[in-house]
Amino acid sequence: MLESCTNELLFVGIDGGGSKCKAIIAALDPVSHNVRILGEGHSGPANPFHGFEQAINSITEAATLALAETGLIDIQLSDLNAGIGLAGVNLPEQFQKISAWQHPFKEIFLATDLLIACLGAHQGNDGAVIVSGTGSCGFSYIDQEPMMIGGHGFPHGDKGSGAWFGLQAVKQVLLSLDGLSKPSVMNDRLLSFLHARDSLDLVEKIADKPVAFYGSMANIVFDAADLGDDLAHGIITEGAEYINRVARTLLIKNPPRLSFMGGLTARLTPWLAQDIQKQLVAPINPPECGAVLFAHQEIAHN
Amino acid sequence: MLESCTNELLFVGIDGGGSKCKAIIAALDPVSHNVRILGEGHSGPANPFHGFEQAINSITEAATLALAETGLIDIQLSDLNAGIGLAGVNLPEQFQKISAWQHPFKEIFLATDLLIACLGAHQGNDGAVIVSGTGSCGFSYIDQEPMMIGGHGFPHGDKGSGAWFGLQAVKQVLLSLDGLSKPSVMNDRLLSFLHARDSLDLVEKIADKPVAFYGSMANIVFDAADLGDDLAHGIITEGAEYINRVARTLLIKNPPRLSFMGGLTARLTPWLAQDIQKQLVAPINPPECGAVLFAHQEIAHN
Repeated sequence: MLESCTNELLFVGIDGGGSKCKAIIAALDPVSHNVRILGEGHSGPANPFHGFEQAINSITEAATLALAETGLIDIQLSDLNAGIGLAGVNLPEQFQKISAWQHPFKEIFLATDLLIACLGAHQGNDGAVIVSGTGSCGFSYIDQEPMMIGGHGFPHGDKGSGAWFGLQAVKQVLLSLDGLSKPSVMNDRLLSFLHARDSLDLVEKIADKPVAFYGSMANIVFDAADLGDDLAHGIITEGAEYINRVARTLLIKNPPRLSFMGGLTARLTPWLAQDIQKQLVAPINPPECGAVLFAHQEIAHN
Repeated sequence: MLESCTNELLFVGIDGGGSKCKAIIAALDPVSHNVRILGEGHSGPANPFHGFEQAINSITEAATLALAETGLIDIQLSDLNAGIGLAGVNLPEQFQKISAWQHPFKEIFLATDLLIACLGAHQGNDGAVIVSGTGSCGFSYIDQEPMMIGGHGFPHGDKGSGAWFGLQAVKQVLLSLDGLSKPSVMNDRLLSFLHARDSLDLVEKIADKPVAFYGSMANIVFDAADLGDDLAHGIITEGAEYINRVARTLLIKNPPRLSFMGGLTARLTPWLAQDIQKQLVAPINPPECGAVLFAHQEIAHN
């Protein structure tokens, strides 16, 4: 393990998701567990379930960029241990494929994106997180026991996520344009967002679009609800109620801390139940720092 | 136009959908509009939106098989006018691509699968249909004016269809296995149907599956409801209520007849509102006969 000028240990930390990958080169203080970021790199999709080659290329690219940003000229990726948190490796087959990868690092320590998000949020300590970005999920890590709630993907799961809100907008607007429900502020907003003339055109515009595209339509629901639109209000109430249920289920195990994370946090939090809102605490560190903490814990335990 | 030994006119009739294509060679009585089937042929998917080459190959293959079955040795496809009803050609781009096809027939008369289903069901006369098979849709054809309700596809539309019921089963079972809702008869049945051990395994088994696969899970909901399962009951009530709304919207235009068609008809009809059930009449002919009637009408009008 490389040491910097103090007792800090150098690591690569990777947070890889369905649409992007972030890498850091970081110095970890082994006593305080503070993570000091020396360089950052970004690249494309890194969920191996949606493409193994793409995922490993994204990881390597982001890590290379992060290392270049540090200016540490006499260090190679092969000198560094890497903590890697990836979406998709909750599936055993994907976990095995990444584990068998001839990677460019010294050693890799592989975890799900949720575990590193949770470790980052709570500085390596026990706790729970609810994530709502493109997808949604609840996760807790208590006494080294991971527990996952939801996170089953689109369109069958991930209720209360950006993609789910976007899909509800599409469904509701189609019903409304068909005359099967009353008009909504969302009708014009969605058609305009998609540059679509009518429902036929709308359906063509969303055909075969990736999940992230659905996520990009979530704000239409929140904007409409802010303008007093009943139907948008109903959608958000349903999504928030699901997140409340996930939170209550996580809280049964008494996690010391519970954080709400992901791109929808700001808009969705005010819609959650008051008692849930009161228990939410801000994440201490982002997921890529959690990946560093994970690698350090794994090395310390073995 | 070829005539058989009487005044009957010979046609090819094609009904092409997302999973299969059916062709008939038929003799149409121009006075009674009776369609006498001389030969039948079946082939694979024929929705050009999901593959143009596949669609035109399926149409040619089914028509060739149908002609072979007639035993009419001195007739070629190039001697026959073809009425072709296809899923996907409600999209203008797909309609144009099929229209521009260097087809093997004398002339082609292209319509949506819904229009030929409606013409077939009502022997070429005005009327309306509701289809619930893998997808769902309402359609009426009155004074040569087509009107479509729903049919926007999966997962954003097609409520009350087989695929929609299958998706609801998956969603509900995942919620239940996560402890976010009470247990359901559907839990064990769906896991067993998919040979899945748990929710992680379930999600792997349904990943990237085509719409028809979701449709194949619809019966799990109906079976569970028959056993008194509340959650399955709730799903069917919601799907049936959507079909009721489609029916009521179609009935505003006073179609002389309204038929309910598609693979889910038998199981879903008893769940529809009593007043809707009373207005349903059985289809007179299948969609491929409607394709023949369509070709004949087009020729007569021009």
